[in-house]
Amino acid sequence: VGAAHPLDGAIALQPQPDGSWQGRTSPAYGNMIGPYGGITAAQCLQSVLRHPERLGEPIAFTVNFAAALADGEFRLHARPARTNRSTQHWTIEMLQDDELVATATAVTAVRRATWSGHEARMPQVPRPQDVPRSQRRGVEWLQRYEMRFVEGAIPSAWDGGTREASLSRLWVRDDPPRPLDFASLTALADVFFPRVWLRRAKPTPIGTVSMTVYYHADAAQLAATGAGHLLLQAQGQGFGGGYFDHGGQLWDEAGTLLATTHQVVYYKE
Amino acid sequence: VGAAHPLDGAIALQPQPDGSWQGRTSPAYGNMIGPYGGITAAQCLQSVLRHPERLGEPIAFTVNFAAALADGEFRLHARPARTNRSTQHWTIEMLQDDELVATATAVTAVRRATWSGHEARMPQVPRPQDVPRSQRRGVEWLQRYEMRFVEGAIPSAWDGGTREASLSRLWVRDDPPRPLDFASLTALADVFFPRVWLRRAKPTPIGTVSMTVYYHADAAQLAATGAGHLLLQAQGQGFGGGYFDHGGQLWDEAGTLLATTHQVVYYKE
Repeated sequence: VGAAHPLDGAIALQPQPDGSWQGRTSPAYGNMIGPYGGITAAQCLQSVLRHPERLGEPIAFTVNFAAALADGEFRLHARPARTNRSTQHWTIEMLQDDELVATATAVTAVRRATWSGHEARMPQVPRPQDVPRSQRRGVEWLQRYEMRFVEGAIPSAWDGGTREASLSRLWVRDDPPRPLDFASLTALADVFFPRVWLRRAKPTPIGTVSMTVYYHADAAQLAATGAGHLLLQAQGQGFGGGYFDHGGQLWDEAGTLLATTHQVVYYKE
Repeated sequence: VGAAHPLDGAIALQPQPDGSWQGRTSPAYGNMIGPYGGITAAQCLQSVLRHPERLGEPIAFTVNFAAALADGEFRLHARPARTNRSTQHWTIEMLQDDELVATATAVTAVRRATWSGHEARMPQVPRPQDVPRSQRRGVEWLQRYEMRFVEGAIPSAWDGGTREASLSRLWVRDDPPRPLDFASLTALADVFFPRVWLRRAKPTPIGTVSMTVYYHADAAQLAATGAGHLLLQAQGQGFGGGYFDHGGQLWDEAGTLLATTHQVVYYKE
């Protein structure tokens, strides 16, 4: 019998008598200060996924990082603010010591078969086994992902040389591999290192302020992906006045779009 | 003395003794059923912009459309859920007859001068005066915008012919022209007709579920834009299971990126 995957430990939530959830930050996903934001996002979504009144599957999810989390316990309140026939709107709050540390909203829905035709195509890239795996170094959460950069890797020299573009493409999966689900997909949506580091080759302090994920796959499609590699792509858009944003896409190895994501990030200088 | 601009009438909010706001849907921005979603978004943001405790200017804003609004009054509750030294996190709820019709979150911040360098460049397009103005027809809110399509106009024939791509580029401004501010910029972020109509040339019923705007300009930059034309661009990403999303950008006439936006939209078939 194998040990539980670290991601399952990280998103474990204990139901409380008042309908809220209690969880703990996971040392396995530690960042420079506090936890990796992708796991905080996954924990917020998990409070909806495990809610007994949930209708359908995630369509849209936005998390706002209001404060640096301290290592330790947190409380999650997920509330179905409006339930329609086939859609449901959620508001989520994460608290530590009665102080708000994150807000989030989610939309879940019962999907129906319709015309489909994804427009964001996976770029032509080498297969994962033909791309060298990045050296694992630095903070703890980076050890939890297997990354293979096709393009736009983290600068090898912090020489302050500016670049016009901040496009990154990489193959990523959990390490150890783990069958994909909505929680792990949400955590993966935050693995991109800060685009401003790529533009400037300068390690200025940063912090994600808000992240949105739109889901284009249902639970069955995610299960079919299994523990395979995903191709992730992100590119910056606006940079100024202490904030930049990026847009990104996540495809399975067969080239099916699973999710799109965006985030806005504070940077110090 | 000129009459008030219809947008100012639409976003007018009356403060209530409990700290909430009361407003009304505006017939000037009527849609097929209920109001234009861009105005609902602007009203939600306005409840933050006018809040006496607001710190800084909008950085990120997400609105989730939980139910079709009825024509008439609504109540807005905006709460500063967390206030830091230079950032503030807002939760917003819009209600009609005590039923939730929209949820939103916003991040405001005091911006600081930093390195800047917008990466999403304005495409090369003809100037607004060299692009014919679209005929104004259809629902009321369309009469409130001056639109000049450079590329990807609404299909002229609903012949069911499918297209590979749904890129639209258009010059837009308020009609009558009005100096740009955060409320009008937010309303403008929703003017894109549904990308699924462009892909399929079939007018399937749709409804925006969630929209996010990231702001890359401060109030002074918006004021400097005045009542000029903005270039708006949007392109679809994923389409399937009843939902599609698009990403978009808004530039001023000089080519400065003012905002980026994304939304996910329900479609019927």
